[in-house]
Amino acid sequence: MRQSQTREQLWAVIRNWRRARFRIALVPTMGNLHDGHLALVAAAHEHADRVVTSIYVNPTQFDDGEDFERYPRTLEEDQGLLEAAGCDLLFIPDDQTVYPYGLGDATRLTAAPSLANILEGACRPGHFDGVVTVVARLFSLVAPDVAVFGEKDYQQLLVIRRLVEDLGYPLQIVPVATVRGVRGLALSSRNRYLDDAQRAAAEQLNSVLSAAAGRVAVAPADWPAVEQEARELLEQRGLRVDYVAVRRAADLAAPEAGDRELRVLAAAWSGSTRLIDNHVCKPV
Amino acid sequence: MRQSQTREQLWAVIRNWRRARFRIALVPTMGNLHDGHLALVAAAHEHADRVVTSIYVNPTQFDDGEDFERYPRTLEEDQGLLEAAGCDLLFIPDDQTVYPYGLGDATRLTAAPSLANILEGACRPGHFDGVVTVVARLFSLVAPDVAVFGEKDYQQLLVIRRLVEDLGYPLQIVPVATVRGVRGLALSSRNRYLDDAQRAAAEQLNSVLSAAAGRVAVAPADWPAVEQEARELLEQRGLRVDYVAVRRAADLAAPEAGDRELRVLAAAWSGSTRLIDNHVCKPV
Repeated sequence: MRQSQTREQLWAVIRNWRRARFRIALVPTMGNLHDGHLALVAAAHEHADRVVTSIYVNPTQFDDGEDFERYPRTLEEDQGLLEAAGCDLLFIPDDQTVYPYGLGDATRLTAAPSLANILEGACRPGHFDGVVTVVARLFSLVAPDVAVFGEKDYQQLLVIRRLVEDLGYPLQIVPVATVRGVRGLALSSRNRYLDDAQRAAAEQLNSVLSAAAGRVAVAPADWPAVEQEARELLEQRGLRVDYVAVRRAADLAAPEAGDRELRVLAAAWSGSTRLIDNHVCKPV
Repeated sequence: MRQSQTREQLWAVIRNWRRARFRIALVPTMGNLHDGHLALVAAAHEHADRVVTSIYVNPTQFDDGEDFERYPRTLEEDQGLLEAAGCDLLFIPDDQTVYPYGLGDATRLTAAPSLANILEGACRPGHFDGVVTVVARLFSLVAPDVAVFGEKDYQQLLVIRRLVEDLGYPLQIVPVATVRGVRGLALSSRNRYLDDAQRAAAEQLNSVLSAAAGRVAVAPADWPAVEQEARELLEQRGLRVDYVAVRRAADLAAPEAGDRELRVLAAAWSGSTRLIDNHVCKPV
């Protein structure tokens, strides 16, 4: 596995791959890799000849009170995992490479309001603006043919699809299903903040959302009641709920009669750790 | 000359050119082409095998009270000029192609504040945000190797250079010197709004800035006095001045002792027509 830290190092490799007409996939990550990330790398291999994984903990997508400073950084372990997963190039830029004129004087992006100002965006103002600000840089720098994102961050997936459509990057976004632990907890780098009791509470998130998705599938018109009950169940089980929402899968608008695919999405705190998850739901 | 209106038509041509390993240049314009634009196309030919010119009057870079509606649109004439200039592909997207989800729900860009909030940006709030919002789309859609911009819009040139550097587009920006009429007036689509008396006043802009640049070249420390005198001269000659500013050419900061290249920039109104111009100035 090659490794590049600067744009020039990155471009030297990419240029050769382009000349060889390789199809290139990008897997953007913030590191601290787990099996969820490795599923992204595996999917990338299915869609391309060469796989670039980026590791960069992007400051502009964290708000002031958030966990940017303590976000886990485990580069050595990540390198071993990516090597074993057959990643071809690891791009680990520093802040100067991503924001050459600093954070205060950067060209920035603002995500599409209808997708970015609700749910996660309402709880974390500016979060998706930071996400598209860094992802546009990665797309422009790597110019991949394919980019792979996990469905755990479902709203992010839609925001990035929209970024690609709006700016017109000629690239395909490949979504990958959420990878879960044995008790259903969606894998996340933030799970390591949880102690045993907090983890047990966190595991309720999947089971409650999964049951809610099942109920909405058979009675889609009941979605407001299902949201309310899921919220109450989560709070009874020790989580502090930011939102539980049943939305149209395509655009996160409120469900309407006849919608063929919905998503049940939630964010909740277990102790001081914020968790998100979602389940697909196809009305029968 | 080929012509494309949709992304798919554009990509079909570009894809073939890429396969043939052609170097591709982009000349973004708002149409109503004059010799200034044709100089951009000529420069593009010097740097690439194939030249794409885009014509799109971008609504997001006009403010509410500005001339978006009356901006001259002369497509048929433009096509003839581009054909004669050897342009290979004319890209004339409609609003739906550039902003597929409408202006209200678009992923947008904000230009680097240090460059975008002064001079033109102070007079036209949000203007450069609209410029980078559309130019990033063109860069992502066409993925050119080279893009050509005129020095008449000097601040825009710097904002776009910064866009390229910040987002990491692997492309070269080629600046082209301002083309002027016989009496020195910088060519501009907006010159057609001028009647004879207004045109005579407008022609003073070049001569006053040129003289100011000459004075600063020999006495760079005098730049604040030169700014003030140039402003007074322009107003005496019937122009209403938005700004006259002597700045560092590299970043538009205030001049400092030892700077090797400055620019004298100005914006002024002749009647209801707003004109901009600038001159280079190399302290001796």
